[in-house]
Amino acid sequence: MTKFTQRVRVAFPDTDTSGRIHFTAMLRYFETAEIEFLRSLGFQYRDARDVVFPRVRVECEYRSAIGFDDEVDIRVAVKRVGSSSYTLEFEAFKEATLAANGSIVVVCVGRPGKAQALPEALRTALVQAASSDDKRADSRIG
Amino acid sequence: MTKFTQRVRVAFPDTDTSGRIHFTAMLRYFETAEIEFLRSLGFQYRDARDVVFPRVRVECEYRSAIGFDDEVDIRVAVKRVGSSSYTLEFEAFKEATLAANGSIVVVCVGRPGKAQALPEALRTALVQAASSDDKRADSRIG
Amino acid sequence: MTKFTQRVRVAFPDTDTSGRIHFTAMLRYFETAEIEFLRSLGFQYRDARDVVFPRVRVECEYRSAIGFDDEVDIRVAVKRVGSSSYTLEFEAFKEATLAANGSIVVVCVGRPGKAQALPEALRTALVQAASSDDKRADSRIG
Amino acid sequence: MTKFTQRVRVAFPDTDTSGRIHFTAMLRYFETAEIEFLRSLGFQYRDARDVVFPRVRVECEYRSAIGFDDEVDIRVAVKRVGSSSYTLEFEAFKEATLAANGSIVVVCVGRPGKAQALPEALRTALVQAASSDDKRADSRIG
Repeated sequence: MTKFTQRVRVAFPDTDTSGRIHFTAMLRYFETAEIEFLRSLGFQYRDARDVVFPRVRVECEYRSAIGFDDEVDIRVAVKRVGSSSYTLEFEAFKEATLAANGSIVVVCVGRPGKAQALPEALRTALVQAASSDDKRADSRIG
Repeated sequence: MTKFTQRVRVAFPDTDTSGRIHFTAMLRYFETAEIEFLRSLGFQYRDARDVVFPRVRVECEYRSAIGFDDEVDIRVAVKRVGSSSYTLEFEAFKEATLAANGSIVVVCVGRPGKAQALPEALRTALVQAASSDDKRADSRIG
Repeated sequence: MTKFTQRVRVAFPDTDTSGRIHFTAMLRYFETAEIEFLRSLGFQYRDARDVVFPRVRVECEYRSAIGFDDEVDIRVAVKRVGSSSYTLEFEAFKEATLAANGSIVVVCVGRPGKAQALPEALRTALVQAASSDDKRADSRIG
Repeated sequence: MTKFTQRVRVAFPDTDTSGRIHFTAMLRYFETAEIEFLRSLGFQYRDARDVVFPRVRVECEYRSAIGFDDEVDIRVAVKRVGSSSYTLEFEAFKEATLAANGSIVVVCVGRPGKAQALPEALRTALVQAASSDDKRADSRIG
């Protein structure tokens, strides 16, 4: 399976008064990694016409603290590709330490609000990413 | 001039690792107060058709610290009403202490991106609010 | 079981270019409801000394779209109370429609970063809330 | 004067239902650029001990629309260096178009909440940056 890694840097508004990131910040990092992962597959959400990609299920486990200015590596993998949805798995590392892991189920929805088939190019790219060898692609962000 | 006061409560993601609110949180509070102020005048952004209301100028001075769970009273006043824009002034109080004050210039823009006349009902309500006596309207939020 | 309901209003920065709320906004609403629920039980996070309450597990299913300015009722219930952690369940309704549901596991952590016993007053209140009859408490926010 | 440019990429939660970024997102981009600018000068906020750096004045003019996934170049310049504060100027470009410009006044505050002298290394670096020739330093982020 293709593994994709996106580096993000923790910003001030990602943290809260506890001195750590707010738990929702990690989910935004997952989404940033997802967008760059799909871009690496040749698909950009910005090019989607007449469809949106809402998340229908999100889960995340938080394992160790992340703080301001930390660099976090988000690994993305395709877990499942359906006809109108897909599931991505995420792991967040601070250096060698697993800080969080989770998954997000994304569904393709036409503007009137009904699930519909994934764009063919996206579906093909995801299936390929899910089945290919572990070629780690790295990228940097934030 | 009509003064409108909106109470907001500081949430965890509004704060950062400094132990205070992130400076952008105050501007979101201003916007919340603006929306409720306009609602009190009979105008709801949600009802706007074919126009959007981007901010073209924002300024804010921060005078004292605000922290998690604090209740902050945001006072709104109309400073200026133009043909396609308006300026609102804001003051944020934590109890009797002025925590911040600022102003926001909002312009009415048609979907193609050109400034256009304010909806007549909104303009009338703002002009009236700007000229009326100081009837303080209170509301609570967040 | 005590059911607690908190009303929140969707703000502009909670939405994104899809025209719906960003998925992380719902989790912030859950947290707002949690804070007000605990306050209704007599416990305020702001009063916690030497401990923080990180989330260690979050999950959410999104069932229908929520948009700008919608009023959303968040219902909170205690699912589990452990010695150093607790699990809360959330349901979000837009009028009679279930828009989302999920759960959050919160752990009590001393400043050095080790799980420790819940404050006794909090634990007692949660156990009582988990076992009491369904007395619905309502509150309004944002 | 040293000009520093930081590239940021617009994320979904930076946008709102208008289809553009929320106005507060631009101010977060300014802060990201500020942090990377100071890092390029050898100063990291994360290393600050016993002081915090609240913003005491912020202003921004918005000149053209920025949307999801746009790449925005934020240019930072030192406008003023005082004994306990400094002012930075920002310009945001989408390709050759000026999308926004503004300034932020930052003050150095000891934990008890009183303004105090800037750390000497930071002050020296800022003064040098303010007076040096226009050596453009580029960086990429997000």
